[in-house]
Amino acid sequence: MPKNVMQDDAEKILAVAEREALRLGKGLSVAVVDSGGFIVSIRRFDGARPMTPLIALSKAYTSAVMQRPSGMLKGWSQSDPVFFGKVGDLGQFPIVATGGGVTLKLEGEFVGGVGVSGGTPGEDEAIAQLILSELGYETDFSEWAGAREAAAETKD
Amino acid sequence: MPKNVMQDDAEKILAVAEREALRLGKGLSVAVVDSGGFIVSIRRFDGARPMTPLIALSKAYTSAVMQRPSGMLKGWSQSDPVFFGKVGDLGQFPIVATGGGVTLKLEGEFVGGVGVSGGTPGEDEAIAQLILSELGYETDFSEWAGAREAAAETKD
Amino acid sequence: MPKNVMQDDAEKILAVAEREALRLGKGLSVAVVDSGGFIVSIRRFDGARPMTPLIALSKAYTSAVMQRPSGMLKGWSQSDPVFFGKVGDLGQFPIVATGGGVTLKLEGEFVGGVGVSGGTPGEDEAIAQLILSELGYETDFSEWAGAREAAAETKD
Amino acid sequence: MPKNVMQDDAEKILAVAEREALRLGKGLSVAVVDSGGFIVSIRRFDGARPMTPLIALSKAYTSAVMQRPSGMLKGWSQSDPVFFGKVGDLGQFPIVATGGGVTLKLEGEFVGGVGVSGGTPGEDEAIAQLILSELGYETDFSEWAGAREAAAETKD
Repeated sequence: MPKNVMQDDAEKILAVAEREALRLGKGLSVAVVDSGGFIVSIRRFDGARPMTPLIALSKAYTSAVMQRPSGMLKGWSQSDPVFFGKVGDLGQFPIVATGGGVTLKLEGEFVGGVGVSGGTPGEDEAIAQLILSELGYETDFSEWAGAREAAAETKD
Repeated sequence: MPKNVMQDDAEKILAVAEREALRLGKGLSVAVVDSGGFIVSIRRFDGARPMTPLIALSKAYTSAVMQRPSGMLKGWSQSDPVFFGKVGDLGQFPIVATGGGVTLKLEGEFVGGVGVSGGTPGEDEAIAQLILSELGYETDFSEWAGAREAAAETKD
Repeated sequence: MPKNVMQDDAEKILAVAEREALRLGKGLSVAVVDSGGFIVSIRRFDGARPMTPLIALSKAYTSAVMQRPSGMLKGWSQSDPVFFGKVGDLGQFPIVATGGGVTLKLEGEFVGGVGVSGGTPGEDEAIAQLILSELGYETDFSEWAGAREAAAETKD
Repeated sequence: MPKNVMQDDAEKILAVAEREALRLGKGLSVAVVDSGGFIVSIRRFDGARPMTPLIALSKAYTSAVMQRPSGMLKGWSQSDPVFFGKVGDLGQFPIVATGGGVTLKLEGEFVGGVGVSGGTPGEDEAIAQLILSELGYETDFSEWAGAREAAAETKD
């Protein structure tokens, strides 16, 4: 039974990310954290900008402790930005609502999070999703209900 | 005469919240604080996400020290978000303008606050309101005058 | 196989603590966190001082994320207080080197932490230890090697 | 001419650290940063405690931006702990005076820093020194003059 992502899992994740970074010809940083959001592995591939490892970490942390991909928090962040900003200061690392972060889930258990930074928003998100699908992690997360509710309220 | 919510009161509040959490089939966290905003009881029911206890606490704290339900601060937060964000940093815990937090008031005295987190915004707010009505706490709070003023200015 | 302490476990822990608080006639606060240091349950028993829930939380957090009882960090804190103070700011909550915090470990797995605050240092520690022994948690933690080394260096 | 440590260099550093961690049978974390103190690579080997990656990072950061091994700051930290504590808050990560951190210097140029955490103070320091000698980094750093001065004053 899975408990937390280990070095071996992290290396596989980083290998997919590095391959994609080379394919794109971009400097990327990737962070892997365990289910409590603690660092397992961070790597800044050559050419990635100095702040990208910490940006990747904030995406990985968010996806682990919020238990859904960081991009799924966009609805919340946009419907109530001041509140979301405050919530974002409550953890060990910043909680962010942006693409490029995914939750690691195996057999229904949360085992960690991954964050990618340094590409375009679309590239970061595509690589994060590729990591999940290529390595067999689950991809089904219930969307934050508040976003749908807020959208519904707006429509009325 | 009441002064502050005690463990016995907190247990009754938590029992209502737990019953509703089970009825909804959702993982919720609930926080109860005294009139000074200090923690009396926090509980993360099974399945609630890791950050929900602190989000519940911020709602309970806000409702206690601002002496009106946290959702009632929305007008202020929206009419002057930068100022509200700064005010939100002044306390012991974040001050937030969102539903799911209610002030505990008995015989005209402020005795504490409750915060609920983990459901949709509508669910959190409905449970918080149910706690007030079912346990006999007062529900009349004068709305923040600034919100009405701002609204009036907009109309002019 | 255990993963993290749940509400049911937390209630048993709080029951032992409450019984001891009543026996001592003291206002105590108790905090229970999961293996990542996230709040599971906090309770301030009647009469406990306002800051005690957060002090209990810092002890519980420390014991969970440092993976040994908070009191076991005293050697480190005393041999290198400036460094320990900096490390103490790196987490979600303060990391402290004081008695009254214990790590929850079952079948060799770290499943959480407990912190007790409000009594004398000896009382807080005795209650924390009683929780471990009475509820069948493991009590063997390898002591921090640095403390022994520092002590040995001092002796030389 | 060297400027900054790259992924290839970081991998060699991590390989030495992992070999030593396996030899000691201990869970260690290692951090590598560039000459500006920005993360290049962090790895928490299996079994290392949750906070060790950040402790390793603070040692690597210190050694990079202070341009001498973190342990060399002990004299300063002990002769003026309050001042040193404040200085330690001025950077992007904590500046610490403890063993286990070394500056990466090649051909007289500062190219980064390494931090090791999770072993005894002696083990962390020995591994850090081994990384320098085995991989051909320079080991000569002028000691902080203030420490000698303070020592001289004490003798007078």
